[in-house]
Amino acid sequence: MSTRQNKLPKWKHRLHEIIYEADTPAGKYFDIILLVVILFSVVIVMLESIEPIDKKYHAFFNISEWIITIIFSVEYFARIICIRRPKKYIFSFFGIIDLLSTIPKYLSFFFIGTHVLAALRALRLLRVFRILKLVRFLGASRILTKALIASRAKIFVFLFFVIILCCILGSIMYLVEGTNDSGFTSIPKSIYWAIVTLTTVGYGDIAPTSSFGQLIASIIMILGYGIIAIPTGIVTSELTKNKIQTSTQACLNCNAINHNDAADFCYKCGHKLNDANG
Amino acid sequence: MSTRQNKLPKWKHRLHEIIYEADTPAGKYFDIILLVVILFSVVIVMLESIEPIDKKYHAFFNISEWIITIIFSVEYFARIICIRRPKKYIFSFFGIIDLLSTIPKYLSFFFIGTHVLAALRALRLLRVFRILKLVRFLGASRILTKALIASRAKIFVFLFFVIILCCILGSIMYLVEGTNDSGFTSIPKSIYWAIVTLTTVGYGDIAPTSSFGQLIASIIMILGYGIIAIPTGIVTSELTKNKIQTSTQACLNCNAINHNDAADFCYKCGHKLNDANG
Amino acid sequence: MSTRQNKLPKWKHRLHEIIYEADTPAGKYFDIILLVVILFSVVIVMLESIEPIDKKYHAFFNISEWIITIIFSVEYFARIICIRRPKKYIFSFFGIIDLLSTIPKYLSFFFIGTHVLAALRALRLLRVFRILKLVRFLGASRILTKALIASRAKIFVFLFFVIILCCILGSIMYLVEGTNDSGFTSIPKSIYWAIVTLTTVGYGDIAPTSSFGQLIASIIMILGYGIIAIPTGIVTSELTKNKIQTSTQACLNCNAINHNDAADFCYKCGHKLNDANG
Amino acid sequence: MSTRQNKLPKWKHRLHEIIYEADTPAGKYFDIILLVVILFSVVIVMLESIEPIDKKYHAFFNISEWIITIIFSVEYFARIICIRRPKKYIFSFFGIIDLLSTIPKYLSFFFIGTHVLAALRALRLLRVFRILKLVRFLGASRILTKALIASRAKIFVFLFFVIILCCILGSIMYLVEGTNDSGFTSIPKSIYWAIVTLTTVGYGDIAPTSSFGQLIASIIMILGYGIIAIPTGIVTSELTKNKIQTSTQACLNCNAINHNDAADFCYKCGHKLNDANG
Repeated sequence: MSTRQNKLPKWKHRLHEIIYEADTPAGKYFDIILLVVILFSVVIVMLESIEPIDKKYHAFFNISEWIITIIFSVEYFARIICIRRPKKYIFSFFGIIDLLSTIPKYLSFFFIGTHVLAALRALRLLRVFRILKLVRFLGASRILTKALIASRAKIFVFLFFVIILCCILGSIMYLVEGTNDSGFTSIPKSIYWAIVTLTTVGYGDIAPTSSFGQLIASIIMILGYGIIAIPTGIVTSELTKNKIQTSTQACLNCNAINHNDAADFCYKCGHKLNDANG
Repeated sequence: MSTRQNKLPKWKHRLHEIIYEADTPAGKYFDIILLVVILFSVVIVMLESIEPIDKKYHAFFNISEWIITIIFSVEYFARIICIRRPKKYIFSFFGIIDLLSTIPKYLSFFFIGTHVLAALRALRLLRVFRILKLVRFLGASRILTKALIASRAKIFVFLFFVIILCCILGSIMYLVEGTNDSGFTSIPKSIYWAIVTLTTVGYGDIAPTSSFGQLIASIIMILGYGIIAIPTGIVTSELTKNKIQTSTQACLNCNAINHNDAADFCYKCGHKLNDANG
Repeated sequence: MSTRQNKLPKWKHRLHEIIYEADTPAGKYFDIILLVVILFSVVIVMLESIEPIDKKYHAFFNISEWIITIIFSVEYFARIICIRRPKKYIFSFFGIIDLLSTIPKYLSFFFIGTHVLAALRALRLLRVFRILKLVRFLGASRILTKALIASRAKIFVFLFFVIILCCILGSIMYLVEGTNDSGFTSIPKSIYWAIVTLTTVGYGDIAPTSSFGQLIASIIMILGYGIIAIPTGIVTSELTKNKIQTSTQACLNCNAINHNDAADFCYKCGHKLNDANG
Repeated sequence: MSTRQNKLPKWKHRLHEIIYEADTPAGKYFDIILLVVILFSVVIVMLESIEPIDKKYHAFFNISEWIITIIFSVEYFARIICIRRPKKYIFSFFGIIDLLSTIPKYLSFFFIGTHVLAALRALRLLRVFRILKLVRFLGASRILTKALIASRAKIFVFLFFVIILCCILGSIMYLVEGTNDSGFTSIPKSIYWAIVTLTTVGYGDIAPTSSFGQLIASIIMILGYGIIAIPTGIVTSELTKNKIQTSTQACLNCNAINHNDAADFCYKCGHKLNDANG
């Protein structure tokens, strides 16, 4: 029988409970210790990058890194072993993050500098809401994710348009300011400037100096003023829509959801709905 | 009887009226004088920090500071004495602010520079709307506070995500630009840069110089363009919701909802509505 | 009779028609010529400020300025003369602008540099929509103005809060960075920096250099990220509200407006409304 | 008969199918090859502007440019020939873009530097959504375009007001900071600074140094904080409106509106609705 084949040995079952769930005390302890280790490892990667600190504690950092890497490796394999369908975990969002969190130290044998990628471990911290059972925050993050997914087509079209616009504006500025000594040395650099300007970041490392260049830059900025309104409008209207559809009724007959707040009958099959207030 | 035990002596009652309320002329005068003293003290702290001015008027500033500190100390104790449950005041928002406004000058005996914290007195000015009975502004601030509280889970999740994102983007930029002489000297500094960029502040004290660094910076900026839309969307949808659900009346006759705020009669059946204010 | 006393002589009536109205050909010509003169005068003020150009054409600019000032003076007095209640014009928004547009050249006799204030003439250009009868734009500007006026209490409370916040953040940064050589030389300068940062302008003329200073700056920036959402939310929810109240019905009985879209009866007096669709 | 006169010869008809449509395999291949050529040509224009790369591959770039220009010229004439009413194409948005994409290389005979305008070819990439039949993105771009067109009057009035405001603020800053050595050398430069500040770009190439200048700059920035909310509010309220009025169906039985987009039955009385798509 298929259920038997899928049945895990008892120790695997127990391991699964500890690693993947946070309902038993053991599971809870495991998760919290893991969070602390992740935080610790992220802090070490950062401190390591500060030269004077690294010089002083290099050996300590190196050993800590190896210990953490081994812990993560063991955890990664444990996660694979104790699950029924390992592929589902390996190719999931957190499965990939877990792998990327483990390999940088191994990679550093072959490529210099790659251990910095260990900072990707920070992404593992996103689990914190689930582990600490912060339902309120989980709900909030689900609403935000949903709104972003719902508006991804619009945001993609918008960003595509912004990039093309920056290419053109950059080229025009290169034409206008290219001969001056103001940093517009090539079209890609000018495009970089256009992006810096249109997103209102404005470093000032490259800035027009001629009057005509400043005039065109002004026009670009005022344009950017109008453009910045668009992604906000997209996300807001999506979030507002979520707000309006607060009805949680489902039709008894056809299970359709998203009923109008004032609905008495199912919009899908015409079946009478339960009284929302009774 | 409990009411007798709680009964304050008459002079305490009178003091309470003056300090905590603004309905009697004495209470009003007290509050306005206090506001003026606070404003004066804040201005002094600022002027004191400007070296040439401080040199010239150092004695005057010092004496003024002491007088103000004594006034605030007296006021603080008066507030504690004349209230029935002092703890409720001491641990309230304004109670803590009042304490923090009073102690910096005392602290300056032990720690150098701490008198600057006297700038926290500015927070006491937030009382101005209540004191001057600016009902309109009080209502506005209540709506804003409510919208922020309602959306605090979403904003918290969002900021948590932004911080993790900045950690990762900072590490990547450190990997790309770390060897160049462009300010990315360590991961924490690169994270600082990522925050400066993603929030579109863009000081320009650290800025990528290599082509590849500028390419990644461009991607980060365009990403930040989309991300800035999210908190705005959160707050807006919260404020909009407030707008839509302003009336909670339902018609007694036909049960219709969504009545106008000023409605006296049901828009659906013409039946008289209950008086909203009575 | 009062109407006789108020009756203007015929030439004043004709003048009023030309100056204040744009329905007759003469009135239209007058307005368009005025717009051209205003534009011309604004351009001259700007060019005058560019040293090499001013050196070359100083005499021309000076004479032009005087001619324009005389034209504006004559126009200003004509406006006062030909109106029944001059005070209503003098203290209106455009009356004050007109005066401010006229006096700078006279003031320049007494105070050096004040002729630059002639740039205030640009405000007179706001009349352009009314003069050119651009109804669409007039409507748009009315909606925007209405939304801003409706949300002015909230925006005021918000800006008041931002200013107090900047005072405190500035003082903290002065405490942290004041001893470094990074521009935080006094509290007012630090407050200026806090405003530059919180509004995401980010010049970079003052920027933290110490690690601790950059940490606090990061917190301020992420805070500012959340705060920038608030005014947008305020204005948006106001503009959205306008959108929702699209019904243009007025009650036949009590003349109340702002009826619900689905309304059959007046919410004010219960009178039957006209059928919106019939 | 008119239809006969308009009838194109068979080869023109076939050409039209290939060039303008993407339903046949030939049409699809043509469009994809064209997209690749456009992308290639845009990349070449950019690389050409980087001096060290241009020096090395100048001949290759020049020849490629000519080949691309010839391809585009042939395509442009083919488009004109095979269409019934050539004027409709020539003066359409994409017709003008196609022409502008073709001529820069020819223009470079007469004017130096104009070949940079070839970057306008990037605009041709906007066709990508139509060619690849990305319906989702096409719909998204249509919604965005619609919202922008609907709010163009408000945005125009807003930008007009911002420009006038910047003129005045710039003049005031010139008056305050003009004598200092902080970059406010003329009114146009000060206006440029005002635009840079109000749009929160903040390069920092020009920044006030005097206390009074920084005070006024602070006021401008806080003002800009409120102003940036307006375009966002405009676009958002427009996009939200689109969301709310997505269904225009009314029930035949009870005349209820605001049906769900997917509704087949009235939510009010359960009556079958008309098929929205038939």
